[in-house]
Amino acid sequence: MAIITNEDIDDLAVGAALLGTGGGGDPYIGKLMAKAAIERHGPVDLLALDDVPDDIEVAACGAMGAPTILIEKMPSGEEIGLALRAYENRVGKAMGAIIPFEAGGINSMVPIMLAAECRLPVIDADGMGRAFPQLEMETFNVYGVPAAPVTVADEQGNVVIIETESAAKAEWLARGVTIRMGGQSYIVNYGMDGRTTRRVSVPGTMSLAIGIGSTIRLALAAHRDPLADLIEFFSGTHYETARLLASGKVVDVSRREQNGWSVGVVTIEPFDTSRRPVRIQIQNENLVAEEDGRVLAIVPDLICILEADTAEPITTERLRYGQRVNVLGVKVPPIMRTPEALDVFGPAAFGLTQNYAPLEAG
Amino acid sequence: MAIITNEDIDDLAVGAALLGTGGGGDPYIGKLMAKAAIERHGPVDLLALDDVPDDIEVAACGAMGAPTILIEKMPSGEEIGLALRAYENRVGKAMGAIIPFEAGGINSMVPIMLAAECRLPVIDADGMGRAFPQLEMETFNVYGVPAAPVTVADEQGNVVIIETESAAKAEWLARGVTIRMGGQSYIVNYGMDGRTTRRVSVPGTMSLAIGIGSTIRLALAAHRDPLADLIEFFSGTHYETARLLASGKVVDVSRREQNGWSVGVVTIEPFDTSRRPVRIQIQNENLVAEEDGRVLAIVPDLICILEADTAEPITTERLRYGQRVNVLGVKVPPIMRTPEALDVFGPAAFGLTQNYAPLEAG
Repeated sequence: MAIITNEDIDDLAVGAALLGTGGGGDPYIGKLMAKAAIERHGPVDLLALDDVPDDIEVAACGAMGAPTILIEKMPSGEEIGLALRAYENRVGKAMGAIIPFEAGGINSMVPIMLAAECRLPVIDADGMGRAFPQLEMETFNVYGVPAAPVTVADEQGNVVIIETESAAKAEWLARGVTIRMGGQSYIVNYGMDGRTTRRVSVPGTMSLAIGIGSTIRLALAAHRDPLADLIEFFSGTHYETARLLASGKVVDVSRREQNGWSVGVVTIEPFDTSRRPVRIQIQNENLVAEEDGRVLAIVPDLICILEADTAEPITTERLRYGQRVNVLGVKVPPIMRTPEALDVFGPAAFGLTQNYAPLEAG
Repeated sequence: MAIITNEDIDDLAVGAALLGTGGGGDPYIGKLMAKAAIERHGPVDLLALDDVPDDIEVAACGAMGAPTILIEKMPSGEEIGLALRAYENRVGKAMGAIIPFEAGGINSMVPIMLAAECRLPVIDADGMGRAFPQLEMETFNVYGVPAAPVTVADEQGNVVIIETESAAKAEWLARGVTIRMGGQSYIVNYGMDGRTTRRVSVPGTMSLAIGIGSTIRLALAAHRDPLADLIEFFSGTHYETARLLASGKVVDVSRREQNGWSVGVVTIEPFDTSRRPVRIQIQNENLVAEEDGRVLAIVPDLICILEADTAEPITTERLRYGQRVNVLGVKVPPIMRTPEALDVFGPAAFGLTQNYAPLEAG
């Protein structure tokens, strides 16, 4: 079994920020939290999805809230453990492994913190294959695992347990609670057995994120173009295809907090003056990139805004006028592109009117 | 032990509406719900506070939300039973009696529904001695009973369990959940043993409400002035003093839904033209009545707006321009007027700048 040490955390933070496609929360804060947990409790076992035993109990976890708020409302570090204890108490079972409900930003780190603290393995997989803004946008939900019970904890030690039959209602209620908790909370949900976990999860996303981070780090150390190395790296993974969608300068950022999310639009003016501005719509994550009304990439495929020179992923809350960026589109695995999956987290699920168009067809 | 039959429910509805001081929800809908439960399950035992055994488990219950919403969002009747089962499951104990968390409106009826359904006695007492707009405004809280765990259920079968050390935080989170549930929910909270219940509750409020209703009914049947009979009735109870504060016409109603409450101001122009308009501030309940800036009555004392001819209590959501009304002030028992009690539900707790002035001193 692989392990995650403090040396992996920096790479994971960069990779998780990229998979976060703008959302998933600030990787710096998540990194500090995960490192502190590993220093205190030791390295975390990383369990390949194929190796998850049939009959262990697995729970998903992560943070909920607007990423912009995480910067100002620091976690105590106790929240997610509190949520897990409330969850285990509610279902009357001890968990045998932790799975991230999301691959991206802080939500690749929170499961490591929790796994370190509880001395449980973390599974090399997740329920989104990227970051999404809503709890029902999970392959777990797409393929039949109930979201509830959901436990929600905050840094003051308050805990809320939600029981409902609908994943969308679980999201709605947990989001309301999270807003009342000041805009940021820590959540355990989607309990299932190991056999089910293997069937409903996006595989390999934790090691994918570490690979993304190390690819960028090694390219920079060798003075190579990290973007070219990244595209090459993706071609050797189950995400297969990454493509440069635009290269240019951020000329407009419109962003606001709405209903517990960061929503907005960023406009990028290409360095190549023969091309038109690229407009990216955001709901915590980057949802759709368009050039002159033509879709370049759209959810669930990834739209990653990277700092032009260093390929450092730029999260939604850190977008600023004048940043020089590359926009990378990345194909997602087949489990995220079935008709059932597109029903739950395709364009229409976000209120977008554009049809889904696979990145590689563009 | 006394029992509550369907014959008592009409009187109780009127009395609960009066104790509701404008809030507590529509008595008509509550009445239908309580009658249906008694028809299905039989009469409910009414247990005098002094007779509550030391060691039984008691839970408080009621509905939460803006009274204006209850009119449009009809309950299924299953909600409060669902909340109680979730509560008993959470604490691992069966309840031996039910206590209303509020005396007023629908919240004098919900405990009867629940008691009928579960074949438990309902205690002749409550935690407010009237209606208040917030869950922490309870003598239970004033005298040291934790509000949580709190279970919250809605008509779709969704259940939320809140665990927190602060009653104000329980209110804040439950209110957020209630808003997400569409503005109306059903709640169980303030679990305690019988000995504690006797120490922290406002006694006799269920039978007081039935007495208020029968006093008005009998006066009308005998063509007597119900207001005079009411004042006489109160003088024989532990509420002791009721006083006519104003007689006049509603000339202005300003009311809106804000943060899950109905808030506003009603202005009454006295029939006696030598007197100035009386202005009553509302947050679900009537909080303060003033004539020309002079306080006539203020929370926690009761301010009851009654239809002029019939003494029918008018709830906040049914206030209309042109209604002819009497405004009755009623003194509350000592347990509601201690410094600790005034800290929790005196004027300052509502953001009012006026000092508390006992009704009988005015």
